[in-house]
Amino acid sequence: MSKILWINPIGTDAFDKVIKDGLMQIKQDGTEVEVVSLKKGPKHLEYRYYEALVIPELLQIIRQAEKDGYDGAVIGCFYDLGLHDAREIVENMVVTAPAEACGHIAATMGYKFSVVVTEDLCIPQMADNFTSYGLKDKVASFKSLKMGVHDLHKDERLTIQKIKEKAKEAVENDLAEVVILGCTIQFGFYKEIQDFIKVPVIDAIIAPFKYTEFLVELKNRFGWTHSKKYGFQSPPISEMIEWGLD
Amino acid sequence: MSKILWINPIGTDAFDKVIKDGLMQIKQDGTEVEVVSLKKGPKHLEYRYYEALVIPELLQIIRQAEKDGYDGAVIGCFYDLGLHDAREIVENMVVTAPAEACGHIAATMGYKFSVVVTEDLCIPQMADNFTSYGLKDKVASFKSLKMGVHDLHKDERLTIQKIKEKAKEAVENDLAEVVILGCTIQFGFYKEIQDFIKVPVIDAIIAPFKYTEFLVELKNRFGWTHSKKYGFQSPPISEMIEWGLD
Amino acid sequence: MSKILWINPIGTDAFDKVIKDGLMQIKQDGTEVEVVSLKKGPKHLEYRYYEALVIPELLQIIRQAEKDGYDGAVIGCFYDLGLHDAREIVENMVVTAPAEACGHIAATMGYKFSVVVTEDLCIPQMADNFTSYGLKDKVASFKSLKMGVHDLHKDERLTIQKIKEKAKEAVENDLAEVVILGCTIQFGFYKEIQDFIKVPVIDAIIAPFKYTEFLVELKNRFGWTHSKKYGFQSPPISEMIEWGLD
Amino acid sequence: MSKILWINPIGTDAFDKVIKDGLMQIKQDGTEVEVVSLKKGPKHLEYRYYEALVIPELLQIIRQAEKDGYDGAVIGCFYDLGLHDAREIVENMVVTAPAEACGHIAATMGYKFSVVVTEDLCIPQMADNFTSYGLKDKVASFKSLKMGVHDLHKDERLTIQKIKEKAKEAVENDLAEVVILGCTIQFGFYKEIQDFIKVPVIDAIIAPFKYTEFLVELKNRFGWTHSKKYGFQSPPISEMIEWGLD
Amino acid sequence: MSKILWINPIGTDAFDKVIKDGLMQIKQDGTEVEVVSLKKGPKHLEYRYYEALVIPELLQIIRQAEKDGYDGAVIGCFYDLGLHDAREIVENMVVTAPAEACGHIAATMGYKFSVVVTEDLCIPQMADNFTSYGLKDKVASFKSLKMGVHDLHKDERLTIQKIKEKAKEAVENDLAEVVILGCTIQFGFYKEIQDFIKVPVIDAIIAPFKYTEFLVELKNRFGWTHSKKYGFQSPPISEMIEWGLD
Amino acid sequence: MSKILWINPIGTDAFDKVIKDGLMQIKQDGTEVEVVSLKKGPKHLEYRYYEALVIPELLQIIRQAEKDGYDGAVIGCFYDLGLHDAREIVENMVVTAPAEACGHIAATMGYKFSVVVTEDLCIPQMADNFTSYGLKDKVASFKSLKMGVHDLHKDERLTIQKIKEKAKEAVENDLAEVVILGCTIQFGFYKEIQDFIKVPVIDAIIAPFKYTEFLVELKNRFGWTHSKKYGFQSPPISEMIEWGLD
Repeated sequence: MSKILWINPIGTDAFDKVIKDGLMQIKQDGTEVEVVSLKKGPKHLEYRYYEALVIPELLQIIRQAEKDGYDGAVIGCFYDLGLHDAREIVENMVVTAPAEACGHIAATMGYKFSVVVTEDLCIPQMADNFTSYGLKDKVASFKSLKMGVHDLHKDERLTIQKIKEKAKEAVENDLAEVVILGCTIQFGFYKEIQDFIKVPVIDAIIAPFKYTEFLVELKNRFGWTHSKKYGFQSPPISEMIEWGLD
Repeated sequence: MSKILWINPIGTDAFDKVIKDGLMQIKQDGTEVEVVSLKKGPKHLEYRYYEALVIPELLQIIRQAEKDGYDGAVIGCFYDLGLHDAREIVENMVVTAPAEACGHIAATMGYKFSVVVTEDLCIPQMADNFTSYGLKDKVASFKSLKMGVHDLHKDERLTIQKIKEKAKEAVENDLAEVVILGCTIQFGFYKEIQDFIKVPVIDAIIAPFKYTEFLVELKNRFGWTHSKKYGFQSPPISEMIEWGLD
Repeated sequence: MSKILWINPIGTDAFDKVIKDGLMQIKQDGTEVEVVSLKKGPKHLEYRYYEALVIPELLQIIRQAEKDGYDGAVIGCFYDLGLHDAREIVENMVVTAPAEACGHIAATMGYKFSVVVTEDLCIPQMADNFTSYGLKDKVASFKSLKMGVHDLHKDERLTIQKIKEKAKEAVENDLAEVVILGCTIQFGFYKEIQDFIKVPVIDAIIAPFKYTEFLVELKNRFGWTHSKKYGFQSPPISEMIEWGLD
Repeated sequence: MSKILWINPIGTDAFDKVIKDGLMQIKQDGTEVEVVSLKKGPKHLEYRYYEALVIPELLQIIRQAEKDGYDGAVIGCFYDLGLHDAREIVENMVVTAPAEACGHIAATMGYKFSVVVTEDLCIPQMADNFTSYGLKDKVASFKSLKMGVHDLHKDERLTIQKIKEKAKEAVENDLAEVVILGCTIQFGFYKEIQDFIKVPVIDAIIAPFKYTEFLVELKNRFGWTHSKKYGFQSPPISEMIEWGLD
Repeated sequence: MSKILWINPIGTDAFDKVIKDGLMQIKQDGTEVEVVSLKKGPKHLEYRYYEALVIPELLQIIRQAEKDGYDGAVIGCFYDLGLHDAREIVENMVVTAPAEACGHIAATMGYKFSVVVTEDLCIPQMADNFTSYGLKDKVASFKSLKMGVHDLHKDERLTIQKIKEKAKEAVENDLAEVVILGCTIQFGFYKEIQDFIKVPVIDAIIAPFKYTEFLVELKNRFGWTHSKKYGFQSPPISEMIEWGLD
Repeated sequence: MSKILWINPIGTDAFDKVIKDGLMQIKQDGTEVEVVSLKKGPKHLEYRYYEALVIPELLQIIRQAEKDGYDGAVIGCFYDLGLHDAREIVENMVVTAPAEACGHIAATMGYKFSVVVTEDLCIPQMADNFTSYGLKDKVASFKSLKMGVHDLHKDERLTIQKIKEKAKEAVENDLAEVVILGCTIQFGFYKEIQDFIKVPVIDAIIAPFKYTEFLVELKNRFGWTHSKKYGFQSPPISEMIEWGLD
């Protein structure tokens, strides 16, 4: 039995129900799922500033989740905001995020992968993330839809059409062998794109959620979880209490 | 329900039972496991020549496994011999191997990992493999025990002592945050090393097996498996039949 | 005439006066300097969690600074926390931080540089930063003092002695041609180390401050400042107002 | 006097005579040449599976060649299959292969080279090979003819026309300064392409053969041949005999 | 007060006056400027041979400049010819050059920069230079005008039009966030291009000159200048005198 | 029949005879050899300044050699000074140099090579050269003898002893599989070191000379020589005549 928390780190619960419903369909039998979002804050995270604003509350949710007995938490945005911070502040709960999970899965499935993003402005930060994860040489290309996050589901046929075009360019021109949908809000599309393009199309909600289930099992069975040596070493509780940060 | 085949690609069944027993303890409830080895051939794979000799039979076992309804197969040697070949020749069965699985898991758990290998002569090939997997920048160091594969269990206390020394050097000098035991025959040791060194110590049998269970679930549920475009494209059956290769 | 704000992004003004005094001695004639710290929060930033907590207030200070007519702001911590976020949220004010400034200066002065950090746990994040700045191949090594930030000035002779040892190792063993003091609170030491080690020793307060004066001149004279295309594109004001983020 | 064996590692002698004739024209006076192919097996090696199947026989041929007094052997396929395995199993005979030889020669002749391959599916494996050889940064691009190996000589004018187009794209768009014909069966074309494109066009038969003559001279005169330390260390004969692998 | 020498390392004073006039407008109040060119030699430096011919006289000018009390010297060509040689032969004078200065500034201003060069033949050498400076991963692309140096000012409207086209391609297709004008003789154009393209456009005369003023201040105030350890270590004077090289 | 010129680019003929004698013993029957040095100039090239001073005369010798019917020229110093310049200024004569030739040969013989240099100050420039040649990832380490060039033959037993120590460290600690003697004046030592260390030890005179014979044969037989497109494009003769540079 494992308990996993999906966090939409945005100030709207607009996507909570649809994501919860989706996760209920794909979770393992023994997994309990909850989905939360933030009480306030930006309604999407296309900008670094928006990310910075929500990270403290996101980290509090994650810390509380560990206290509440969750085994794992997923940061539900393809920027993977606060991922390393969260791994530092938890004791041994698993924390994952979409880009990292999709990247490792995709790297196992093909020689190079391409990432379909919403807008060009996403690319520098995402490229730095894949570099930090050690996967830079597996990236064939980024392909931008030039659409905002909240437009993705306004006309779903149009969105799917655009993603198909970008996926085709990625596979034919950039020799991508796998396509990653580089925004959690591209949910619901992967199957149709995959049937069309004939290479694995990785969904940014399913992949990190299943990766979390996987890592939770590794943690619970073998004690393998984020290393607390060096990069993810936790601050001392006494210091946090003294400074009112706990 | 999934069926997974562990293949010891060596000409001895000396390790089959112990590995089967181990896998039975760590598998998911719904997983069926079988362990096989080769009818003849070298009894370890420290040399490239030995690998080359066993790959054709290994690939036949993998092809047959797919026909027999297996969902996944693990190539049980940290050289990951024949991994890419196998992904080409299967239709959509999952194929994994230790170094790739351990590498992706370890990269999720820490900034850099070190690999404890049996002998220095392993390092060039293994380093090339991690480069091919895109994980080169995550490798802190290789540490050599300077022991042959078949000596690992002769004096287990001695082996554990040596691994502890190498793990300590890796963590303290090379700043490894995770340690990988870079030979499947280092089985049975990870827990004691992990308790000693206080960072995740990844076992080269457990990790690829659990990774296979994970990938099999992704394949069965979402159709995500090794891309058949470009690098893993299968040869045409008609040609194989014509040439007597099927 | 230019106005520059130095921000100590920590919840203590303990270092404000000494840094202000230091900056008054090294600033150009036409530069106005102010030093601020945070109202509350952690008293050092050795942990990612602490960084995450202070970034929102840090960004508000930077936004306000631009409204108040500052030409440049320095984020006074060698982790360069919030640097890219800040460049996104300002309109055209210069924002700098120690690691980036020291890195570019050091790369101009020698083939490779080493960074003397307080503790090993700093290294993964700092290494990622230098990679993001494009300077990864210029890093000879990180050298850790194994001292906390607030211990650096407890026994200054001891600290200087330790830095000298690490600098010597860096120059002699790792062939560093330049040494960077990788923590702003190593202030006051560079000259003595430099006289000892006979290579440039870059101070993490002076370097980013002077780099800011330099960039401010480029901005004011030639319109060269952080590009607002892609990675540093600002969120739309209307959206921020609508969401109460302004 | 040196004896060199060219091996077409495919189950057809269709190309043996034409290659032998070609080599007779380009060899040095003191070189003796033989060309062999396999008794059975795939008739081309476009797939990894086909490579894996032929490697054991290829390695036996190479071992036997050393016993028969050959100074060098060339593995006649641009995938360089079994190259590292062969260097391990020989004692001090030279073994070469097309991609490695062409790559080193081309890197000496210009800043970047492009490789004209038969099909896109060749690229991942070949790219990994150039990375393993240390030449990754010298590759300007791969250009695919989208033709099978056995179609290359069906309509030679058409093939030459296609190679010219790809070579032109490589030179003009990708700034290649040298072009490599990335398949041994593109033999007979290099001169006409070279006259057209005005940069060196390296033939995948001539280059490795001449490189072998060169390395054989180094071996015979100075004792320089493949290092037997670490990566190419040979398995112990006693073990091979015991296991019936000799 | 600082004295800076701009050197046009070509055998014509055709550009001396216009560059001197330009520098007078952008220098700091306390800076003294002189501009010199060579007595004879090639009138542009598009070829490596031309560079090699002028470097000895260039180095003599730089050595003499240090004796004459200059604080800094700029090598006025985007190939940065002799930059490392000069840093070796001076004692502690600052020496800079356009590509290095532009690269560091541009890397501070955006994620990736593109360089607009005169001709394709410039690219290999310039790419190697950016690699040597550690900035290879910051280069989005090189864009060639396919114009000779001496044609740049023949029809300035045409030149500006071409640079605009190349800058637009760089920003829109290659996602450059900053554009560098990769030839000093593209002077006078940056403002108009910058107003058009809306990203920083770095001028190859202004940038290294201001960078020199900056480095001179660092040298004079903090003793930070080119490291004399290893790569820039000066030859012994006694030896130079003995060999008549002084 | 081929004619090759070895150039000692230093102002002393002290090494001409011994090198000529050595080359006579290792050349192919059909090769004519000449050795020249410079009329004046520095007597070693440990410093970049010294290199810069001799390059113009070196290039004139190389140009003249081509007019005199030489097929190839070797620049006899491990810094490979002027190598790219020379390839630009010749029409189609082969030009080689020690580091490039040794690097390509060594990369064929083992996974990684180490370079034994005279002094630490050589390393930055040599490291940049190997990067430019695309061989950076093949370098295991540089090992410094801390001896000047003219001391190498003062006490040959001592020098050999020191090289053995460094070679041993390289092989045992850095896992080098090949050792390069990184200075032409380490001539005469390779065999004894090689017998001792049991890996190929590449001599910096023999290797480039034989590589030149090899490239000359490729040029004469197949028209393969340095590409004249882009990086090595020659300046127009008319311009050189007009400017008095011919």
